[in-house]
Amino acid sequence: MAYTSDSIEKLVEEFAQLPSIGRKTAQRLTMHVLKMPKEEVTDFAKALLDVKEKVKYCSVCFNFTDHDPCALCESQKRNKKIICVVEEPNDVIALEKTHEFKGLYHVLGGALSPLDGIGPEDLKVKELLARLQEDVDEIILALNPNVEGETTTVYLAKLLKPLNIKITRIARGLPIGSDLEFADEATLTRALEGRVAL
Amino acid sequence: MAYTSDSIEKLVEEFAQLPSIGRKTAQRLTMHVLKMPKEEVTDFAKALLDVKEKVKYCSVCFNFTDHDPCALCESQKRNKKIICVVEEPNDVIALEKTHEFKGLYHVLGGALSPLDGIGPEDLKVKELLARLQEDVDEIILALNPNVEGETTTVYLAKLLKPLNIKITRIARGLPIGSDLEFADEATLTRALEGRVAL
Repeated sequence: MAYTSDSIEKLVEEFAQLPSIGRKTAQRLTMHVLKMPKEEVTDFAKALLDVKEKVKYCSVCFNFTDHDPCALCESQKRNKKIICVVEEPNDVIALEKTHEFKGLYHVLGGALSPLDGIGPEDLKVKELLARLQEDVDEIILALNPNVEGETTTVYLAKLLKPLNIKITRIARGLPIGSDLEFADEATLTRALEGRVAL
Repeated sequence: MAYTSDSIEKLVEEFAQLPSIGRKTAQRLTMHVLKMPKEEVTDFAKALLDVKEKVKYCSVCFNFTDHDPCALCESQKRNKKIICVVEEPNDVIALEKTHEFKGLYHVLGGALSPLDGIGPEDLKVKELLARLQEDVDEIILALNPNVEGETTTVYLAKLLKPLNIKITRIARGLPIGSDLEFADEATLTRALEGRVAL
């Protein structure tokens, strides 16, 4: 009997099931919660319930949202003629943080992965095609630079080609602050291929 | 506007306030929660509330417990004549995991730290002395091997000396699996001082 309290045991287990949180960290988090003021813990519990209660998928872009359609899709400030295709809602957050992109998004909900049995029908590909019935100038494919992302990029490029819309993909090359010497061959090859005129 | 949902924003903030969880991890955890079945999230929220609702301090050893006195203090299988003094409830869990110690515990609730303004009156020292009115054979001081823990050990040893109870401290030396070559001077010094006859 390591824990003298079932409630503590239970909360440690709950924390430990989260990704990247091991049993030791779960224990430390539980001890922290025990020292938190009661109102803060109540807020935390409420935030957990709220997120399941209120958050749904936007029926246009399939990003997470409290209101359907989401604030990005509804915004008058966004360029509705450019759609950036990403794998997960996480990716939208990452791109929004750059404050560079002013178009709309389309969240596929994953990437093609034949090994895991994930085909086009498991992703929001049909819904993407439906959106392209409207006037769209450019599709930016912003999928992860790994096997699944590449596969999906190639698949979508082929699928969208007949529509005569400009299709681009985000650049692959050396990340800022990195060292050419330590870059892997695949990254360097892409960086060379993607060289731009000065 | 990085998040398209206030509920998500709120939960990310809640996770990010926990120790050792940065904003990126908080975001990943939130995304995980969004994908969890609703019942599991409800259980998680309930575990959080329960821990604040049900867990209190044991009035004997000041460990966390659901029932007062705690299961350890109430157990008939424990040797009530040996008391192991530790800083935090965490330390009880760590020691219990060894299955080596069969006595009782006393949780001080911290260690002496004049710099942080923590004196003996902020710890459960008075309560420890009260417990020693009963028949106790040995006090094991198991405080952390750092400045605060050492200070507390020396303070308690001096305080308890007149009571004529055997006072011991846990050994300081090389941790199992470590390398003598890479041990720091302080650890090696303690290891030499604490050498035992074979």
